[in-house]
Amino acid sequence: MELSHIYAPIQADLNKVKDTLKSISRVDFGWLAEQLSHVVKETGKGIRPALTLLSGKSFKYDLEYLLPMAVSVELMHTATLVHDDAIDKSSTRRGQRTINSIWGDEIAILMGDYLFAKAGEFVADTQTPRVIKLFSQTLGTISSGEIAQWRGSYDPNQTREDYFHRIYGKTASLFSLSTQSGAILSQATEEAITVMKEYGDNLGIAFQIVDDILDFTSTEEAMGKPVGSDLIQGTLTLPAMFLMERDAEDNPIRKFFETRDKKHVAQAIRMVLNSDIVSECYGVAREYRDRACHNLKSLPNPASRQALLDLAEYIVQQGK
Amino acid sequence: MELSHIYAPIQADLNKVKDTLKSISRVDFGWLAEQLSHVVKETGKGIRPALTLLSGKSFKYDLEYLLPMAVSVELMHTATLVHDDAIDKSSTRRGQRTINSIWGDEIAILMGDYLFAKAGEFVADTQTPRVIKLFSQTLGTISSGEIAQWRGSYDPNQTREDYFHRIYGKTASLFSLSTQSGAILSQATEEAITVMKEYGDNLGIAFQIVDDILDFTSTEEAMGKPVGSDLIQGTLTLPAMFLMERDAEDNPIRKFFETRDKKHVAQAIRMVLNSDIVSECYGVAREYRDRACHNLKSLPNPASRQALLDLAEYIVQQGK
Repeated sequence: MELSHIYAPIQADLNKVKDTLKSISRVDFGWLAEQLSHVVKETGKGIRPALTLLSGKSFKYDLEYLLPMAVSVELMHTATLVHDDAIDKSSTRRGQRTINSIWGDEIAILMGDYLFAKAGEFVADTQTPRVIKLFSQTLGTISSGEIAQWRGSYDPNQTREDYFHRIYGKTASLFSLSTQSGAILSQATEEAITVMKEYGDNLGIAFQIVDDILDFTSTEEAMGKPVGSDLIQGTLTLPAMFLMERDAEDNPIRKFFETRDKKHVAQAIRMVLNSDIVSECYGVAREYRDRACHNLKSLPNPASRQALLDLAEYIVQQGK
Repeated sequence: MELSHIYAPIQADLNKVKDTLKSISRVDFGWLAEQLSHVVKETGKGIRPALTLLSGKSFKYDLEYLLPMAVSVELMHTATLVHDDAIDKSSTRRGQRTINSIWGDEIAILMGDYLFAKAGEFVADTQTPRVIKLFSQTLGTISSGEIAQWRGSYDPNQTREDYFHRIYGKTASLFSLSTQSGAILSQATEEAITVMKEYGDNLGIAFQIVDDILDFTSTEEAMGKPVGSDLIQGTLTLPAMFLMERDAEDNPIRKFFETRDKKHVAQAIRMVLNSDIVSECYGVAREYRDRACHNLKSLPNPASRQALLDLAEYIVQQGK
C-alpha cells in the first residue's frame, strides 16, 4: 500500500504542515534562512506529523491545535537529526549533505538548538500545558537515549533489554508524543489517550527495528547513507545482537569492536544476510505492530482507525 | 555592596532554586547523574533566577510559579554554556573543567539538549502559555545570536550595531525573559511587565559590556578562563571595537585576525589597558544601567525596587 493512500484522510493538512515548515526558513536574516531552507527542504515521509493528525482524526479534530503540534514534532525530529549528524560525523542524510558537513559542527549545534526553540514555540501555540510538558519530557527521554547509545557504543556486552530501552528513548518516545498529543488536543477520553500512547510506543519500536534491519539489507542509494552505518558507529542493533548470540566467541562484530577493521563489518553483513536473522527481526517488528494495533478497535472513527492499521502494516513491510 | 545583601529579600527562595537544580542530578541512571552533578555543582551567582524572584517580589509573589520559572532560566543558561564550551573548545569555565573537555563534544551536545529539555519541563510547570512561548522565543533569539557571533568571528568589519544586536541575542534576551516572566507570573499589569522587560533588556546589555571589559582587565584566576579569550575566538567586543576605531590601519586586532599570531592579542590588551577605552566602556555600561532603572520608580514595592537598583549598580561596578 502506498503512503499517499494511507495519508488520504489528512493529506491536505499534512501539506499545510510542510508549508509551515518551509515558511520557517523565511526568517529575517539571510544567511540563517539559507541554512534553514537546507534543513527543511527534504522533510522525509512526515510520519510523525501524520501520526498527530491521524490520531486527532479519531476524536474532535481541530486544526488550530493540531497544526502547530504536528509542525512541532517534525521540528523536534529534525533538530535531533541535525545534532545526531554532528555527533556521528555523518556527511549525508537522505542523500543530502548534512549541516555539519557543509558548515561545521559549531553551526550544526546552534542550528539544532534553533530548531528546538522553534519546535518549542509551536508547541506553546497549542496553549495546552499537558502536551507542552510531554513535549519537554520527550526531548529529555530522547537525549538520555542518545547518551545511552553513545555511552554504550563499541560495547559488545549489551543486552536486548538495553536495546529496547535505547530505541524507546531515541525513536518510540517521539512517536508516542505524536500520537498522544493528537489525542489530547482532540479532547479524547483518558482511555483513548492510553490507546494512542500504546499505539505510538509500540509502533515506534517496530519502526526502529525495521530501520535497523534496513541498515543491513538496503543499499546506500536507497538509504542515502552507507550500509552498515550502525555497526561502523559501534551501535549494536537487533540483527547484530542476534548474530552475536549465535556465535558469541568467533564473531565478526566482536572482532570489529576490538580492531575497528571494517572488513569485519562486511563479513557481519554477509553473515546476517545469509541467515534467518532478517526474517526473525521482521517477526519481532510484527509483534510490536500487533501490540500497537491491539486496542485500536475501540476507536470511534473507522477511516482514521483503518489508516492507523495500514500505517502500521506499511512500516513493517518496508524493505520487503 | 555585596550580592548577599542585594539578594536578601529573596535569598531563602534562591536557595530553594539551587536545591532544585542539585536534585536534577539525582536521576535514575548513574552515569548521567554523575555528569549532571558536575554541571550544576557551580551555579555561579544565580543572577538570572534572582532576577525572576526579585521581579516577582514587586507584585503578587507566588513561589508555586516563580520557583519552576527561576529554575528554568538557570537551566537554559547552563545548557547554552555547555553548548558554547563545545563550540569554543573551551577547557575551563568558572575554574572548572568543561563537559566537552572531560567527556567529549558528543556528550556535551547531548547534555546540553537534556538540560534544555529539563528547562522546558520546569517552564511547563508554570502552566502559563505566555511565558512558555516567551521561553522558546528566547532560546531562538539566543541561538540566532550565537550563530551571528560564530558567523562574524575574525571579521574586522563589524559595526557597533552588529555588536549590540549580538549581545542582545546572546545575553540580554535571557535577562529579559527572567524579569518579564517574574512579572507575568505575579499578575503584574501590562505597563509593569513592560517596565520589567526594559529593565531586563538594558541590564543584560550592561552586564555583557562589563563582561567584555573584564576579558581585558581581569585575571585568569578571577575569571576561570584565559584573559583575551574573546579576541582569541575572533569575537569583536566593545573595547576591541573602540581600539580598532582609534587606529583602523596599523592595528593589532586586525593583524591578529589576519595572522592568528597571539602576540598581537597581548599587544591589543596592553593598548586597551593603557588607554581610556576601559573607562569609556564602563561609561556605556552605565548608560544602559540608567536606561534599565529609568522606570523602576513606578514599582510598588520599595524593598524589591531598591534590590533591583542595587543589582544594576553591582553589575556596572564589577571589576572596578
